[in-house]
Amino acid sequence: MNLSGIIGYPVTPFSKDNTSVDLDKLGKVIDVLLEAKVDAIAALGSAGEAAYLSETEWKQVADYTVKYVDGKIPVVIGLAELTTAQAVNYAKYAKEIGADAIMLSPFSYYKLSEDEIFLHYDTVSKATPLPIMIYNNPATCGVDMSPEFMLEMINSIENATMIKESTGDIQRMHKIYKLSNGEVPFFNGCNHMALEALNAGAVGWCTAAPCLIGDQPKQLFDAVKESNTEKAQQLFYQQYEFLEYIVTSGLAAAVKSGFGLQGFDVGDPRKPLLPLNHDARKRLLEMLDNLS
Amino acid sequence: MNLSGIIGYPVTPFSKDNTSVDLDKLGKVIDVLLEAKVDAIAALGSAGEAAYLSETEWKQVADYTVKYVDGKIPVVIGLAELTTAQAVNYAKYAKEIGADAIMLSPFSYYKLSEDEIFLHYDTVSKATPLPIMIYNNPATCGVDMSPEFMLEMINSIENATMIKESTGDIQRMHKIYKLSNGEVPFFNGCNHMALEALNAGAVGWCTAAPCLIGDQPKQLFDAVKESNTEKAQQLFYQQYEFLEYIVTSGLAAAVKSGFGLQGFDVGDPRKPLLPLNHDARKRLLEMLDNLS
Amino acid sequence: MNLSGIIGYPVTPFSKDNTSVDLDKLGKVIDVLLEAKVDAIAALGSAGEAAYLSETEWKQVADYTVKYVDGKIPVVIGLAELTTAQAVNYAKYAKEIGADAIMLSPFSYYKLSEDEIFLHYDTVSKATPLPIMIYNNPATCGVDMSPEFMLEMINSIENATMIKESTGDIQRMHKIYKLSNGEVPFFNGCNHMALEALNAGAVGWCTAAPCLIGDQPKQLFDAVKESNTEKAQQLFYQQYEFLEYIVTSGLAAAVKSGFGLQGFDVGDPRKPLLPLNHDARKRLLEMLDNLS
Amino acid sequence: MNLSGIIGYPVTPFSKDNTSVDLDKLGKVIDVLLEAKVDAIAALGSAGEAAYLSETEWKQVADYTVKYVDGKIPVVIGLAELTTAQAVNYAKYAKEIGADAIMLSPFSYYKLSEDEIFLHYDTVSKATPLPIMIYNNPATCGVDMSPEFMLEMINSIENATMIKESTGDIQRMHKIYKLSNGEVPFFNGCNHMALEALNAGAVGWCTAAPCLIGDQPKQLFDAVKESNTEKAQQLFYQQYEFLEYIVTSGLAAAVKSGFGLQGFDVGDPRKPLLPLNHDARKRLLEMLDNLS
Repeated sequence: MNLSGIIGYPVTPFSKDNTSVDLDKLGKVIDVLLEAKVDAIAALGSAGEAAYLSETEWKQVADYTVKYVDGKIPVVIGLAELTTAQAVNYAKYAKEIGADAIMLSPFSYYKLSEDEIFLHYDTVSKATPLPIMIYNNPATCGVDMSPEFMLEMINSIENATMIKESTGDIQRMHKIYKLSNGEVPFFNGCNHMALEALNAGAVGWCTAAPCLIGDQPKQLFDAVKESNTEKAQQLFYQQYEFLEYIVTSGLAAAVKSGFGLQGFDVGDPRKPLLPLNHDARKRLLEMLDNLS
Repeated sequence: MNLSGIIGYPVTPFSKDNTSVDLDKLGKVIDVLLEAKVDAIAALGSAGEAAYLSETEWKQVADYTVKYVDGKIPVVIGLAELTTAQAVNYAKYAKEIGADAIMLSPFSYYKLSEDEIFLHYDTVSKATPLPIMIYNNPATCGVDMSPEFMLEMINSIENATMIKESTGDIQRMHKIYKLSNGEVPFFNGCNHMALEALNAGAVGWCTAAPCLIGDQPKQLFDAVKESNTEKAQQLFYQQYEFLEYIVTSGLAAAVKSGFGLQGFDVGDPRKPLLPLNHDARKRLLEMLDNLS
Repeated sequence: MNLSGIIGYPVTPFSKDNTSVDLDKLGKVIDVLLEAKVDAIAALGSAGEAAYLSETEWKQVADYTVKYVDGKIPVVIGLAELTTAQAVNYAKYAKEIGADAIMLSPFSYYKLSEDEIFLHYDTVSKATPLPIMIYNNPATCGVDMSPEFMLEMINSIENATMIKESTGDIQRMHKIYKLSNGEVPFFNGCNHMALEALNAGAVGWCTAAPCLIGDQPKQLFDAVKESNTEKAQQLFYQQYEFLEYIVTSGLAAAVKSGFGLQGFDVGDPRKPLLPLNHDARKRLLEMLDNLS
Repeated sequence: MNLSGIIGYPVTPFSKDNTSVDLDKLGKVIDVLLEAKVDAIAALGSAGEAAYLSETEWKQVADYTVKYVDGKIPVVIGLAELTTAQAVNYAKYAKEIGADAIMLSPFSYYKLSEDEIFLHYDTVSKATPLPIMIYNNPATCGVDMSPEFMLEMINSIENATMIKESTGDIQRMHKIYKLSNGEVPFFNGCNHMALEALNAGAVGWCTAAPCLIGDQPKQLFDAVKESNTEKAQQLFYQQYEFLEYIVTSGLAAAVKSGFGLQGFDVGDPRKPLLPLNHDARKRLLEMLDNLS
């Protein structure tokens, strides 16, 4: 399996009372992503509110996604568990149901040392043959991994083969590229940095944006790959405010509210997360109108 | 109930294989705290690895602690849950088993807005009559609450009555004191800032230090309250390196390793957390020797 | 010479057109500080707008201050020059006119390495027999010096004997105290941290506050030294908003505006610095009324 | 005058004893830049150690540079003065000697408010008809200007027409582009961010790199403008370590040491700045060898 291009992130639709996952609607969200020409699906990422699901719900979403996508494109399963034991449990489940890869981040309460993070990844790697994407997102996970350390893990941990970088610091990508001689594939995880990430050599872009704006992220990806600098710049700035806004206003809340604005009710995010308020919805609607 | 003085934090002893809580040893840890003359016990704080426990384990620890302390001193239950529903579930349980107060922090994956945090606290407050200590610790919880916002919650949310401040910024305490005319009780949650926190008007100090160094924190508290500036300074600097070290080397790991060095095996912290390595244990031993 | 207590900072009064120093008014500012019972005067610090003076003006102010104080209390001369050559020039001048000590900070355009800073201090030390206070204020000077590094300089550079710490981080003072066994005298340079600095062992407090609020800083200093915890706390919180405000609104501008509000026109600060605007003056007036 | 492309920054050669500028060697440095095909010369920037020159030296360098370049390409004069009066003095001089533009940054001791910065720029603008490039470099100048504020100045201050952004945050450039509809020209001032800056729409790149690596920066600029994504990426990564190294090791010191390694002795930087030490020179030599 060779991941690249646009990796689309579905949100997790909930029932009206917020107490269970609405799997039928999840299927429709996946349809939206497939129509947006994503090259892979990543279930249970930040956008999917994985951190807010019970174990039962988590497994339902993972299982349903793999079955629904049905091999059309690869499915990546996000893993951000506080204990290594639970990460192993979920990693084994991902393999069991037929997922193609896992995306593993060191979600933490205590700040973790590099020794602790290394052992976490290594233990998960030993529990599953699936390729592992190392996911660095200190804003949500509470720990930051340097390019040097992530490359060290890739060299030493059998199944660790890819990196998703979400700090928003383009220098991290330059370091990954330089230190690995361009040989370790890395993905952009910061929406409003997509243009420079792709120009810096990112093989793909992990994003929930296709949920709301169709294949425009894919068009941007293609423009860079086709060396059409002017078109890439134009496509990027067209999407820029939207890309920044869904990040700064809270990804799950923003995408769910956006779906609602487009007439597709996927329910609210799970509390303490709140849906966008009236003003934020209005601003989002303007952006969506400009992009449709 | 009027909390003040030293609030002691037990660690959570695990079985050899790390898969279950060792309640007998938890009882012994509580004995150590009682002998250290703490004025209250706070179960399931950071030191107690609450974030790494299953629901069953969490409830065992809460229940056992309340029963074991048996009314000798107040018992506070720490709550740091990702979903509001689970926080409510635990808050109700705390009341049910007879705890005296809850200490609630907004542990988060997504950064939470003030609206989201407010609703989280308000919902918990409406689910339980127990007094709530607002606990601000961005280093572990991922969100930071300003003094102004915490005081606003105290004014508006019925059971929110106290603050625990752990940012390490003494100015936060000055703001709390000034803006509330010294009327909202606040606790120090940053060990190596104890001297200035108490001088700034903190009514108490939340700490796991008594697990390892007996009543020395209590002596420091008393020296400040007795206006013995020189003695307070001397006691503080005596403990200073130790207080800083257990924080910077990871509280649960450090206290558990310290117990081991003192001949009381409480098991390792739960993975991905690791016990202190050889050099760190050596350094901790020197500090403990100097303090005994 | 043994510096301790309150070190008062005069502002530098300018003529109406802002193009020259008004020395007569400088004398009156010094009178205000003497009446406020300061234990020493520090000319040409931040408050004195030293960075905005020509060489001629700088020397006028230094010379006039030493002559005007006339040995009643020690005079410290601030030095914050971009080149080592100019710092040496001014240090020699300070000796020549009979100043008692110099306070030296590494004001910088380029970030300086520790080697560069060390050589700067060492070169100045070799050019003058005056004792040197190492002054750390990254907010104005652009470089930060760790406690460890400053103590290393004190051990290695002949005339470097004291530290003024202005980062606002109380831990720095704890480190200085601990690492030097309480033997290296350090001063507080962060007004709204005075209470904790003095409790942490600071031998003095460098402040322009006595320009506007008389001997209240001195009373606070005395209360801590007399081990009157309650009185110290009360005096500190009484001054707290004022102490924070003059720092956050710009020290020179705030003190000059304050003098104006009290009926003593010392001119505006030098452009690009602006005097406080109408609202800020109004707020300052309220604070001054509360403190008079 | 329409600035774009590579704006080359000469260093300021000093005499052996560091006490005067060596103008003949400055001429040779300018020759190196002209051979490197720079599109403009910017005298008295950070690389030129403008902050460390006396007024006489500063004027010598400005004057000599304009005369030496002799209209072949535009000459920009850097201005980073602590007082508005001195900035006006220098701005008038720049006009007098026939410079084409000034690059103005708010070098500061006290943090400046937006009102203070605005007045500083406006006063300079009123004193000279030369176009002004607003230069934002908080790392050296001590204050940070937001894209919004810089655009406000461009809208309101007559001669302020361009921006040089050196924070290292690519989002600043996206904001400038978006908020001005791509109509305000901005330059990259962060060497190791050149690739993404140019792709984001920067019209030029301000850099001292051509002093040491010839027209390679110009080749990179051209590759982006010619929409040759692959070649741009390859050229960028080829220069990347060097570009980062000269910034992180101190621009003036690194370029001067680099000239020395290439057999052209331009003297040391002015103290407290030190030349690169032995190891750093060795590393720089390796990089230069790889790029020649």
